Amino acid sequence: MNLPKPDFTLFRLDRWLRPASHPLKSPGQSPGLLLHLGEQRVDKVIFTATEYDEEKAECIATEDVSECLRFADTREVTWIQVTGLHDPERIAQLGEAFHIHPLILEDILSTHCRPKIEEFDDYVFVVTKLLHFDAEQHSVEVQQFSLLLLPDTSVITFLEAPTPVFDPVFQRIQTGVTGRIRRSGADYLAWALLDTVVDHYFTVMDGVDEAIADFEERFEDDPNSVKAAELYQLKKEVSALHRLVRPIRDIATILHRSESDLITPATRPYFRDLYDHAVHVLEQTEDLRENASGLRDFFLSQASHRMNEIMKVLTSFSAIFLPLTFLAGVYGMNFHHMPELQPAWAYPALWVVFGLISIGMFWYFRKREWI
Amino acid sequence: MNLPKPDFTLFRLDRWLRPASHPLKSPGQSPGLLLHLGEQRVDKVIFTATEYDEEKAECIATEDVSECLRFADTREVTWIQVTGLHDPERIAQLGEAFHIHPLILEDILSTHCRPKIEEFDDYVFVVTKLLHFDAEQHSVEVQQFSLLLLPDTSVITFLEAPTPVFDPVFQRIQTGVTGRIRRSGADYLAWALLDTVVDHYFTVMDGVDEAIADFEERFEDDPNSVKAAELYQLKKEVSALHRLVRPIRDIATILHRSESDLITPATRPYFRDLYDHAVHVLEQTEDLRENASGLRDFFLSQASHRMNEIMKVLTSFSAIFLPLTFLAGVYGMNFHHMPELQPAWAYPALWVVFGLISIGMFWYFRKREWI
Amino acid sequence: MNLPKPDFTLFRLDRWLRPASHPLKSPGQSPGLLLHLGEQRVDKVIFTATEYDEEKAECIATEDVSECLRFADTREVTWIQVTGLHDPERIAQLGEAFHIHPLILEDILSTHCRPKIEEFDDYVFVVTKLLHFDAEQHSVEVQQFSLLLLPDTSVITFLEAPTPVFDPVFQRIQTGVTGRIRRSGADYLAWALLDTVVDHYFTVMDGVDEAIADFEERFEDDPNSVKAAELYQLKKEVSALHRLVRPIRDIATILHRSESDLITPATRPYFRDLYDHAVHVLEQTEDLRENASGLRDFFLSQASHRMNEIMKVLTSFSAIFLPLTFLAGVYGMNFHHMPELQPAWAYPALWVVFGLISIGMFWYFRKREWI
Amino acid sequence: MNLPKPDFTLFRLDRWLRPASHPLKSPGQSPGLLLHLGEQRVDKVIFTATEYDEEKAECIATEDVSECLRFADTREVTWIQVTGLHDPERIAQLGEAFHIHPLILEDILSTHCRPKIEEFDDYVFVVTKLLHFDAEQHSVEVQQFSLLLLPDTSVITFLEAPTPVFDPVFQRIQTGVTGRIRRSGADYLAWALLDTVVDHYFTVMDGVDEAIADFEERFEDDPNSVKAAELYQLKKEVSALHRLVRPIRDIATILHRSESDLITPATRPYFRDLYDHAVHVLEQTEDLRENASGLRDFFLSQASHRMNEIMKVLTSFSAIFLPLTFLAGVYGMNFHHMPELQPAWAYPALWVVFGLISIGMFWYFRKREWI
Amino acid sequence: MNLPKPDFTLFRLDRWLRPASHPLKSPGQSPGLLLHLGEQRVDKVIFTATEYDEEKAECIATEDVSECLRFADTREVTWIQVTGLHDPERIAQLGEAFHIHPLILEDILSTHCRPKIEEFDDYVFVVTKLLHFDAEQHSVEVQQFSLLLLPDTSVITFLEAPTPVFDPVFQRIQTGVTGRIRRSGADYLAWALLDTVVDHYFTVMDGVDEAIADFEERFEDDPNSVKAAELYQLKKEVSALHRLVRPIRDIATILHRSESDLITPATRPYFRDLYDHAVHVLEQTEDLRENASGLRDFFLSQASHRMNEIMKVLTSFSAIFLPLTFLAGVYGMNFHHMPELQPAWAYPALWVVFGLISIGMFWYFRKREWI
Repeated sequence: MNLPKPDFTLFRLDRWLRPASHPLKSPGQSPGLLLHLGEQRVDKVIFTATEYDEEKAECIATEDVSECLRFADTREVTWIQVTGLHDPERIAQLGEAFHIHPLILEDILSTHCRPKIEEFDDYVFVVTKLLHFDAEQHSVEVQQFSLLLLPDTSVITFLEAPTPVFDPVFQRIQTGVTGRIRRSGADYLAWALLDTVVDHYFTVMDGVDEAIADFEERFEDDPNSVKAAELYQLKKEVSALHRLVRPIRDIATILHRSESDLITPATRPYFRDLYDHAVHVLEQTEDLRENASGLRDFFLSQASHRMNEIMKVLTSFSAIFLPLTFLAGVYGMNFHHMPELQPAWAYPALWVVFGLISIGMFWYFRKREWI
Repeated sequence: MNLPKPDFTLFRLDRWLRPASHPLKSPGQSPGLLLHLGEQRVDKVIFTATEYDEEKAECIATEDVSECLRFADTREVTWIQVTGLHDPERIAQLGEAFHIHPLILEDILSTHCRPKIEEFDDYVFVVTKLLHFDAEQHSVEVQQFSLLLLPDTSVITFLEAPTPVFDPVFQRIQTGVTGRIRRSGADYLAWALLDTVVDHYFTVMDGVDEAIADFEERFEDDPNSVKAAELYQLKKEVSALHRLVRPIRDIATILHRSESDLITPATRPYFRDLYDHAVHVLEQTEDLRENASGLRDFFLSQASHRMNEIMKVLTSFSAIFLPLTFLAGVYGMNFHHMPELQPAWAYPALWVVFGLISIGMFWYFRKREWI
Repeated sequence: MNLPKPDFTLFRLDRWLRPASHPLKSPGQSPGLLLHLGEQRVDKVIFTATEYDEEKAECIATEDVSECLRFADTREVTWIQVTGLHDPERIAQLGEAFHIHPLILEDILSTHCRPKIEEFDDYVFVVTKLLHFDAEQHSVEVQQFSLLLLPDTSVITFLEAPTPVFDPVFQRIQTGVTGRIRRSGADYLAWALLDTVVDHYFTVMDGVDEAIADFEERFEDDPNSVKAAELYQLKKEVSALHRLVRPIRDIATILHRSESDLITPATRPYFRDLYDHAVHVLEQTEDLRENASGLRDFFLSQASHRMNEIMKVLTSFSAIFLPLTFLAGVYGMNFHHMPELQPAWAYPALWVVFGLISIGMFWYFRKREWI
Repeated sequence: MNLPKPDFTLFRLDRWLRPASHPLKSPGQSPGLLLHLGEQRVDKVIFTATEYDEEKAECIATEDVSECLRFADTREVTWIQVTGLHDPERIAQLGEAFHIHPLILEDILSTHCRPKIEEFDDYVFVVTKLLHFDAEQHSVEVQQFSLLLLPDTSVITFLEAPTPVFDPVFQRIQTGVTGRIRRSGADYLAWALLDTVVDHYFTVMDGVDEAIADFEERFEDDPNSVKAAELYQLKKEVSALHRLVRPIRDIATILHRSESDLITPATRPYFRDLYDHAVHVLEQTEDLRENASGLRDFFLSQASHRMNEIMKVLTSFSAIFLPLTFLAGVYGMNFHHMPELQPAWAYPALWVVFGLISIGMFWYFRKREWI
Repeated sequence: MNLPKPDFTLFRLDRWLRPASHPLKSPGQSPGLLLHLGEQRVDKVIFTATEYDEEKAECIATEDVSECLRFADTREVTWIQVTGLHDPERIAQLGEAFHIHPLILEDILSTHCRPKIEEFDDYVFVVTKLLHFDAEQHSVEVQQFSLLLLPDTSVITFLEAPTPVFDPVFQRIQTGVTGRIRRSGADYLAWALLDTVVDHYFTVMDGVDEAIADFEERFEDDPNSVKAAELYQLKKEVSALHRLVRPIRDIATILHRSESDLITPATRPYFRDLYDHAVHVLEQTEDLRENASGLRDFFLSQASHRMNEIMKVLTSFSAIFLPLTFLAGVYGMNFHHMPELQPAWAYPALWVVFGLISIGMFWYFRKREWI
């Protein structure tokens, strides 16, 4: 009977989502200073540089940014992944080597940045949220993923913490010449990475979809096992996911329609595909929101229905006893002249009357479907 | 009094609709590999090739894709229907013969693809959902239908499972020279097929419309026979239908405004007609959603009204017995001096009082419309 | 206490509105065949041909279509009204004489066609719904009205059944040279007819407005006389009207902005006026929907308020009797030593106590506004 | 306990608003005839002609339209105000003198015309609703205000009834050369008049705002003094106001972006200002609608909360008496062997038990916050 | 049990927000006159003039406007901040010196002006609301902030009252040559000020976000400690904030896309950044509104749930006593022949029956989860 605390957390998203509302810097501060804004989520900043063309692929992981810089102006495709954002100095060094605008670096380092795309003559900059669904722990890990597509066939990506999400792309680069990735340029690599991000959105949506289906099943099995607080939490988390995923459509639209020289005609159909997926994933989040709302409405209406049923039964039950108690009261009266009290059969007869009244009322209430 | 399980399924759509939320491929996987993603719904992949012009029509059905390939470059209109998608190899063979882009083939094989249109210089590609309403079983069969309009007067269509939906079109091709279809090109064939798809949307909408009308009728006849869970299910299925049908408007808009050379001026009015129908069918699904919502609101308000009526009756009933029981209690008291207890007429007189009180209260409650 | 059947029908619109959801033809059927799709609502198909210029006006009504055909190429303004659509053959004959595209004829004959406009180089085609409010029977008659504006100063209109709606236009043509209609061309005639259609929409809206006002009045006079089912029906019919009227805005927009040669500059201001009226009528239907929703919300909240009032009264009433019954029970106990039972004044004194308790509680409940 | 009639009227808007739904003319009637459609709200039609330039200002008020006509072609700014619309003949005379299109005159005379703007090469025509808030009577007077800006530096305005609204503009024209109005042209005058109209919209909005604040205050002071019917009425009137004011944004947008020669560059910033105000007033009406809805929701939730509190108290009260009455019943039983009945202290002891039970239950209910 | 007065105020916004609904001037008044419209919030009007270039920075604060005027035409960047608006005369003097249009000055002096941007050839004018969150007093101070970017490298800003908001910008100007501000022009200064304004919006949003989180926590800890009136107030204040912040997006959009010569290419990326922040802050206010609504729905559904639980318990409790009281009544009857009354074990046996009935019913209700 105690109201349960909403201790249920569907995806443990709260941890990641709260900071997203913080400002990008303290008000009025100069934009020129590079500062890491956000939680430090990894011990050391690691730079993973991969260089490949059709013939060979080479990959190094180092804490020393200068080792990466030698890839800056090579003809091969270069992919530098920075994992960990809490070392602004070395990231600034990297930025300088690749001629990145300070405002861009600032956005990269601020993990509360709204997902967006910026397209310039000489680079394309994408900030997005990377969702990784851990099916075992039933949790979603959220981190910021920034991608820079640069003119000298380089892609630089930034992560807050290590993630297995991009391992398949690494493998495709490593494992040989059959796939298309080794034969294509930096734009194809950028697409492959963003496509992986969107694919993981689908995985998360499927998780939520299953969670909603679970709720429905539990609700059917035992309506009392579902708490309103859980549904409220579900609705909040679905909304939170929607907000995280929402900007991807704009990003995909701009990439798909981009006239940048950095995107070659051969890669355009892939970005069009990315756009289709982005639209699809957004439609799904909207459908999930609708489903969550519908489930809550259904839950509330069922709760009120159950309550009504109980009240009907209890009130009918009371109504049956009222005439009986009245009659018992009548024959407990002390009038001197109550002829019914005399005969020996009177008392058993009254029990018969009691029985008839109860059965009659029960039958009437049943017929009326009140009980 | 037990809450009923929502075991009612209006159209058994769930079976088909759940997989639609799955990603197109496992995240990060290379897009170059052709894989059938979805349930296998037919034993063998059948290729049905039809070739016709004004003079003659020829049709073969084979499992051997190479038999179809000889139609590839003929001057007559060629329609190749592929039924079953679980043999990527042979479909790739077909794709190669007709110069189809691998990404298109991938979309065709993935049955979770969002309905869409892609228009290129040398082909038009449409993915849509085919709904077939089985009036007897009161179920809707959903499958993916892809259509390729190619420059060499060819149309290639892909189905997951056999369906009688396109039989009338086959018959129009076979049965002679009176109809327009034999005199027209591949664009007219494409229109005829898509128009058939949209016509079947109308049939499904009519089925839902009747289901809603049935609900209303049942509700009028016996309000207790309708369960909230059924209405929840109805609303969910109407929303699901809406989502399936929704993309057809965009597809029709693009076809209607298309400036592709593949669509001849003589066929344009037909595509305009298709657009009108698509708009109409969408308006209908929106009206159906509104109706389903309205019905649910009405149901809830009536349920609460009925509950209120019952409570009013039971509470009034209790209220009538309260003063009676009180009076009986009074004359059951053991005071030494209670003059009313003496006279012989006292006890019958009290029954008269009981009667007057009940009748008076009943009359009052009736007047007030509480009972 | 029985739930009333929603036997109330505001405008008897249902009859007309249900078929509107049917498909235009059976799925997959060839579009070349002319078939009348819909209910036959008149015995014979009548062709009413009117020809006029500034000097003279001539009108014939005939069942023989060929009599009309002689008007086809005259210099005067020709208006052919076809009443009844169940004779496809003769209508095809008319269509041929005036060079009308078969798809247009098909739309005209299918009475489930969605209202729309099609503008071509050599004709303008408008399909719309004609609403006629019969104030006496309080019913709305709905039929399809199609209008063709042709280059040879001809207007052809199609009706499902006879209607007095266009009589004023006929009279203006007949009764002389004062009005503008005789001095103007076919475009002005088309405008006059469509304007009449829109004017009748206003009449219907006024009828609905009055119906809503009636509801409010009845509700104020006797809240119990209004049933939820009526409000549900009202809301459904207002939505149905909205759907019927909705397409007129698009039609009027296109006509107003039309650059067709068939519309002369002198007539343009009139079409602009038509556009204003169409916008106005749509705003009104939206306001009506809002009003109907508001009324329903008000009804529900008042019903729940009334219920609450009743429960408060009944429960307060019960609460007053509880202590009295308890006291009566106390003095009915059989303890050997109950000093209060002895004195002669004890019993009357208890009645005084009963009175004080009831009055005190009544006063308290009154003060708290519970009773 | 009686349901109150919604006899409360916030602004007595109903009187003015109902006719707004009537059609502009009887259906099918010729548009050439000038007819006054609406209520006659003034005895005589008055023509007030004002002519001014930087040096002098002259004003006459007359019933004779011909006296005004001599201003028609003067070089000074001419403002003719027509008060009262029920004399179509004289207004037609005026129209002819200033070359006004008959459809425009028809709109002016029909007081149910939807607010709108029409911009032509040689004039700008604005129809709008003039709201005048009478703070003492707490009522809003609504009338139609039409304005014509003509090329020969003339402004003609039409009112249904006299109003003090434009007195400040008259005074600015009369009282001297300090203000800008005497130095500016007809476009500035048009702006000044429309700006006055919009300013009065703000006054009305403030009135509604205060009314809502009053409601809130009354509700806080005594929740029972507010009736649902009042809130329903408030919501309806706020919606009605919104509808009246809504078209002003479109009017202001068109004026602000106008490329008409009638508006001089010097006046453009003022029209831009007008546009800002129109946007502002519309945002306010939308906020007011939101507030009214929020207030109603709050009212309903508080009403249901209060009801629940009462039911909790009454039911708890009943629950306390139930065990007491039961015990009293027990010791009223007639068993031959009931040892408790013998001792002299038994009866007082039972009263102690009664007291303990009541206090215990009261304490428990209090702790649980049920009472 | 008394309904609490909504004496809770989240941010004490009401004080500032009410006047915002007042008109800009009394209706019909001439726009030429400069009047301060609004509350006087500071004793004296202070002019703070700052002049800087890369080498030096000079700042004076004076009540004498003429001291500022000497900065008017210098080559260095000039920033004049006017604090206090109640001295129209001196502000007009300033306006004249910098050639500001009278309508602009009027907007600046009217503190009820809707936030907006006006872009002209020779200046950019921005009006916006400055929100300053006082974390200690948990209040938000609202004032109007106007900014003029002028061609002669000047920025003039207007405040209603002193505020610490812009102190960091002052410091960045003062403290040396490291930052970008001293090396940049007036456009960069304008950006820095507007960016500070938007940053403070984020601070306020965070405050509201925390307030909502507090509510949720309090609600979880003790559901009875939260009042519906507080949630109503919260929702109103969040809506009010939304309205204040809403116009910033349009302002930022126009600045970001501006083609004015006053904004140099080097500063454009910063304005693009401002646009991103403005979009972000608006999305956050919309999310906050959604959260506030969701919280209210949750609160209502929980309140009704708690009520239902209580009613279930109390009604079950009553139901248990009904058969007991009935039985006690039966054995209180005075029939001459009631064999059960004789045996010595009868009375204790009845107590056993009482116990069994209570336990049985309690067990049944528990099983059914009614208690």
